[in-house]
Amino acid sequence: MMIFTEKEIRSCVGLDLEAVRVIEEAFTDLAVSKVITPPIMRIDIEESNGEVDIKSAYVAGKPFFAIKVSSGFFDNYKLGLPSANGLMMIVSTVTGEPEALFLDNGYLTEVRTAAAGAVAAKHLAKEEVQAVGIIGTGAQARYQLRALQLVRRFEQVLVYGRSPQKVQAFKEEVEKELGIEVTACSSPRQVVVSCDIVVTTTPAKDPIIKADWLHPGLHITAMGSDAEEKQELEAEVLNKADRIICDRKDQCLRLGELHHAAEQGDGKTADQAIELGEITAKRIEGRRSDKDITVCDLTGTGVQDTAIALYAYKWLKAQKTSGLIIENKKISFS
Amino acid sequence: MMIFTEKEIRSCVGLDLEAVRVIEEAFTDLAVSKVITPPIMRIDIEESNGEVDIKSAYVAGKPFFAIKVSSGFFDNYKLGLPSANGLMMIVSTVTGEPEALFLDNGYLTEVRTAAAGAVAAKHLAKEEVQAVGIIGTGAQARYQLRALQLVRRFEQVLVYGRSPQKVQAFKEEVEKELGIEVTACSSPRQVVVSCDIVVTTTPAKDPIIKADWLHPGLHITAMGSDAEEKQELEAEVLNKADRIICDRKDQCLRLGELHHAAEQGDGKTADQAIELGEITAKRIEGRRSDKDITVCDLTGTGVQDTAIALYAYKWLKAQKTSGLIIENKKISFS
Repeated sequence: MMIFTEKEIRSCVGLDLEAVRVIEEAFTDLAVSKVITPPIMRIDIEESNGEVDIKSAYVAGKPFFAIKVSSGFFDNYKLGLPSANGLMMIVSTVTGEPEALFLDNGYLTEVRTAAAGAVAAKHLAKEEVQAVGIIGTGAQARYQLRALQLVRRFEQVLVYGRSPQKVQAFKEEVEKELGIEVTACSSPRQVVVSCDIVVTTTPAKDPIIKADWLHPGLHITAMGSDAEEKQELEAEVLNKADRIICDRKDQCLRLGELHHAAEQGDGKTADQAIELGEITAKRIEGRRSDKDITVCDLTGTGVQDTAIALYAYKWLKAQKTSGLIIENKKISFS
Repeated sequence: MMIFTEKEIRSCVGLDLEAVRVIEEAFTDLAVSKVITPPIMRIDIEESNGEVDIKSAYVAGKPFFAIKVSSGFFDNYKLGLPSANGLMMIVSTVTGEPEALFLDNGYLTEVRTAAAGAVAAKHLAKEEVQAVGIIGTGAQARYQLRALQLVRRFEQVLVYGRSPQKVQAFKEEVEKELGIEVTACSSPRQVVVSCDIVVTTTPAKDPIIKADWLHPGLHITAMGSDAEEKQELEAEVLNKADRIICDRKDQCLRLGELHHAAEQGDGKTADQAIELGEITAKRIEGRRSDKDITVCDLTGTGVQDTAIALYAYKWLKAQKTSGLIIENKKISFS
């Protein structure tokens, strides 16, 4: 079994057009191939304000599939630790043997999640974009912006977050790294009304974005909600959209924005939702006019994890110097 | 993160009375403590005649919980490889960080599964036992026998398996290792009618044991069935038993012998089933007389994995020389 550290993984896998292509293909696989994606396994540890998710997906014909363990422990900041953690492994689909372990501390998840945002924007946002809005100031907010830069040109970023200190840090870091002007907004409304693309990246339990703020041409990617109680968009936002897209319909109906729209609406909204893979597979059109309002609900699927892990493994194995090999033969009964 | 190989794990954890005590406590925890056991995640890979299960359980108040990946690829023998494989990890319940990885190739599963058989026999088999019957000749058949020797004295073993070669190998190995006479039987009936304890350890999809063969005083532990389509006992076997015990009722109703009894019977049998933890916690009596016919349906639960993993970690950490430590600090956004 080969074991790779975060540093080794980062040296091979970046958030670039190749990663976006890999994730785009994963969504197409979901639509056109035989993919087994069991429901997410979730362990909530209330005493520590923590949650652990386990995701997996097997794409028929691939030599390996991935199993991902990811955790979010939201009081870790009190201990000076990051809230997100995790690792991935790949398992042989021929023999069931564990093949490689990626001690990535959640890095590959950041990459595949941001890449999904880029895939959504590529197919759903207007071609000409002036301003991009970001709700939330965490690590994934930064990754989403980087990913959007791969598929759209834009001159301005508007950001809203609850902590002024974090907004300021976000502004400084993004302006320095991406060379793009960032405006701190005093309300989420200001972000939404001024932008062509809005990405929400929060663990909100009460909706942040209101339907009243929508305007023709807007595209929203909501990637924060991945649990029953989370919600970033008013249900009415989905009712008002011309196009509702999601990564995995059954999962979004349980854990995503679709879930709340289905519960609070007449069921029509949920019925109309299209899976992103239907669009990347060119079975269904994405945005149809510059006036469309489009909303993409991303909850994160195991097929993204399997795709990014197999992609990482291809490069890590090729780069022969890295990776720790543990020889661990099975000892037979004696 | 600490990483341990099978050899290191075997040097610390054996199938002994201490392991049986740990698993007995785990069942008691299931009955009396707050335990979160999400449904098993299962990925079937039909092309390779393989299956991968992921199990987990969090026992409130423990510093870690385990996640186990175990696979069974039943054509592996054609490649000269064992069918079973897997690994376990433990994760901090305080911070969500991965703490240790056990590259045990399924060894800890063999131990915790056999230990559960010993717990069942301890509480459910007659005190005086002449002969023990084993259906199946795989590795777990051997482990179950070793485990039974920890809780009951017996002079004779009867075995039935479909392959005469495997039966012969089983007989030779067990006679040599355990110093006990083994009789190869030509039918499962011969095993059941002659024994006080029978353990079934097969992946059978059609029932092997018939209700007609039951006799007063018999105890059966059925540990093979852990999937919807598997079945080792006729449904009528459960209907005829005086006491039906299972490891986890909701799981056995989906994956175990209870599932078939519930489907084919009038539902009474399933209603009467008692969880093993109710007995180890001394809330309910086990065997009540030497005439009782008792049946224990074991599907394997995540709480056993968490218990054996935490037990292994305690010893492995104490034995400072073993274990590979990988320093892998999270790299922040840059």
